[in-house]
Amino acid sequence: MSLIVQKYGGTSVGSVERIQNVADRVIAARRQGHELVVVVSAMSGETDRLLGLARGIRANIDGRELDVLLSTGEQVTIALLAMALEAKGCPARSYTGAQVQILTDSAHNKARIRDIDGARVRRDLADGKVVVVAGFQGVDEMGNITTLGRGGSDTTAVALATALKADECQIFTDVDGVYTTDPRVVPKARRLDRITFEEMLEMASLGSKVLQIRAVEFAGKYNVPLRVLSSFQEGEGTLITFEEESMEQALISGIAFNQNEAQLTVAGVPDQPGVAYRLLGAVADANIEVDMIVQNVGADGTTDFTFTVHRNDFEKALGIVHSRAEALGARQVTGDDKIVKISIVGVGMRSHAGIASKMFEALAAEGINIRMISTSEIKISVVVDEKYLELGVRALHDAFELEQPRSGQ
Amino acid sequence: MSLIVQKYGGTSVGSVERIQNVADRVIAARRQGHELVVVVSAMSGETDRLLGLARGIRANIDGRELDVLLSTGEQVTIALLAMALEAKGCPARSYTGAQVQILTDSAHNKARIRDIDGARVRRDLADGKVVVVAGFQGVDEMGNITTLGRGGSDTTAVALATALKADECQIFTDVDGVYTTDPRVVPKARRLDRITFEEMLEMASLGSKVLQIRAVEFAGKYNVPLRVLSSFQEGEGTLITFEEESMEQALISGIAFNQNEAQLTVAGVPDQPGVAYRLLGAVADANIEVDMIVQNVGADGTTDFTFTVHRNDFEKALGIVHSRAEALGARQVTGDDKIVKISIVGVGMRSHAGIASKMFEALAAEGINIRMISTSEIKISVVVDEKYLELGVRALHDAFELEQPRSGQ
Repeated sequence: MSLIVQKYGGTSVGSVERIQNVADRVIAARRQGHELVVVVSAMSGETDRLLGLARGIRANIDGRELDVLLSTGEQVTIALLAMALEAKGCPARSYTGAQVQILTDSAHNKARIRDIDGARVRRDLADGKVVVVAGFQGVDEMGNITTLGRGGSDTTAVALATALKADECQIFTDVDGVYTTDPRVVPKARRLDRITFEEMLEMASLGSKVLQIRAVEFAGKYNVPLRVLSSFQEGEGTLITFEEESMEQALISGIAFNQNEAQLTVAGVPDQPGVAYRLLGAVADANIEVDMIVQNVGADGTTDFTFTVHRNDFEKALGIVHSRAEALGARQVTGDDKIVKISIVGVGMRSHAGIASKMFEALAAEGINIRMISTSEIKISVVVDEKYLELGVRALHDAFELEQPRSGQ
Repeated sequence: MSLIVQKYGGTSVGSVERIQNVADRVIAARRQGHELVVVVSAMSGETDRLLGLARGIRANIDGRELDVLLSTGEQVTIALLAMALEAKGCPARSYTGAQVQILTDSAHNKARIRDIDGARVRRDLADGKVVVVAGFQGVDEMGNITTLGRGGSDTTAVALATALKADECQIFTDVDGVYTTDPRVVPKARRLDRITFEEMLEMASLGSKVLQIRAVEFAGKYNVPLRVLSSFQEGEGTLITFEEESMEQALISGIAFNQNEAQLTVAGVPDQPGVAYRLLGAVADANIEVDMIVQNVGADGTTDFTFTVHRNDFEKALGIVHSRAEALGARQVTGDDKIVKISIVGVGMRSHAGIASKMFEALAAEGINIRMISTSEIKISVVVDEKYLELGVRALHDAFELEQPRSGQ
């Protein structure tokens, strides 16, 4: 018998019928002999309804009272799911974050979990009950209700799995697993049976929005096996674990891409200390997030400096850079918001030379010009013209033979 | 500086605009130098919405999970009111029943308050904050969320006022106080400045649904001055207190009536022990509530037995009584659902003879036949034909000169 923590998001519990379906899934897992803790989000639409009420009260909503308000969303779901389980003959018990106790710091609206007291949950499990826990919320040392911020329910599930030493943490979403790339772009994209935490982090941060980054980090840190599955169809999903010996052979696990970026280049900047700071500091001061930053070795005492921002921030960033460039004595400022970033991700590339050149070769063969390159230990990202997105992703998917199950799986 | 507990019901907080109005009222009271604890209900309609969700899950909804669900209603209101107060520059802090702690027994859906820990509330008051508390809910010793059942928010307010030794508990409703009788029947009905707890209990149970009986009992037991006021208009409302010397002169404080009753009479029942039980036991077994019961002294070894039930239960009760009457050897069973009960209420009648005869005289002068009479220490009720309701109430209102402020006020 193993202990499994399951998490169902807002879409999965978006109606009374869907809550009944979740109850059926939970009961099926229980019949297989597992002990179950189920973490749920607010029903889809409920958080927006509550935010609408709050915005009717005041313009700026944040702080302690917003958490009191929003935490009711999951509380409704836990009660309904526990009722549904009991109606189907499965003993169940619901807990708010405060009841569990999921102890957090006092940073309202973006609290971090400090500790979880699993005693009550363990007692109920020993009594044969399914335990239903409200995601996204906790309580601080003073007894104030807190919320964890975006994607907090995933984090709740992973943290509970860690505290309870669960055998697996299963995240149910509206996709049936993690794919080698977006199946809408590459129809023959393949669901991965397994992926490492590090690869998942790169995939997540690069635009494969299956799991919240924080939850993956947490699961990796505490070595909780994490599985992504579909709420709406059967299947084994994708298991996210640590790298194993047998996975060494795999080179590339997937291809991520991001269509929401724009590129800014400041050419002919004096090659001096402090230039990068003076440029990017102004951008950061305007609350614009910067993604890639590339600066090449300079020549003739000047250098070219390129970075990417979210497409929505392009005009604003361009204005800031223009005003700074003059003071820096730059030769030229150019920008383009018709670009995409494509990345290949895989722990295998650490120990294999030639991955980068294979990538560039595949793109060149299709006549795709690479505008920027940036690498980390387990990924290589390139920026290309927007029009090459589909062509580039498909060419790479073929070149790395991702439609074939990778060795070691 | 006095400490005041205010309570606003669902209609008073039924929209974002109304919550803003409540915030204005609270701030106005604070400007007068008072310390304030504010108890609120769920926004009107919210409890029904939640019940609708629960009924989508299962047919029979009760128990622990229903309380987890319903308690979110008040939690939304406390957050919104605290936000509104802070937006208007008034420091405020919200608490759920569990946070306060309002400790109850574990009778879910109809829990009773055992104890209130006022420490956190007192600390916030000392810090100059307005404390906003969720009505209707508490927490049991195990940390489970409980609800107090019908009218629970009034009870929360009175219990908090007791625990905090508040100077006054103010219940804001959609009427501006307690009237000598229903102003829709007697246009010159007068708002009472004061009424005793006992009178209020009789008025409440007789159909003047201004306050929940349980809250009045509680306030009386712990001697918390209770005031009924309107959320929507200015005014002093009605203060409910213990009888004082100066109130002795008042004879009658008000006239209550109930249009929802039906009368059943079993005539010629053998005048023997156990007859009442055998008749009413069967009615009670069918979950029919009995209001008045009148049995006169028998003659010729038989007696007549009359009682009243809610009009909705009339046919069912008549069937039960018919079936029993035969076995009891009764002569005849009659019933009538075209009746009303009219009651005069007042602590003054204790020490004054002649109140009853004055009542009967006033009704006789209008040609109104009295079908039943029942009395308690501070009220006299009569049952008359339904068509005489308005005429009877107006005649009594005139006879006892209720349009004049009573002496001692």
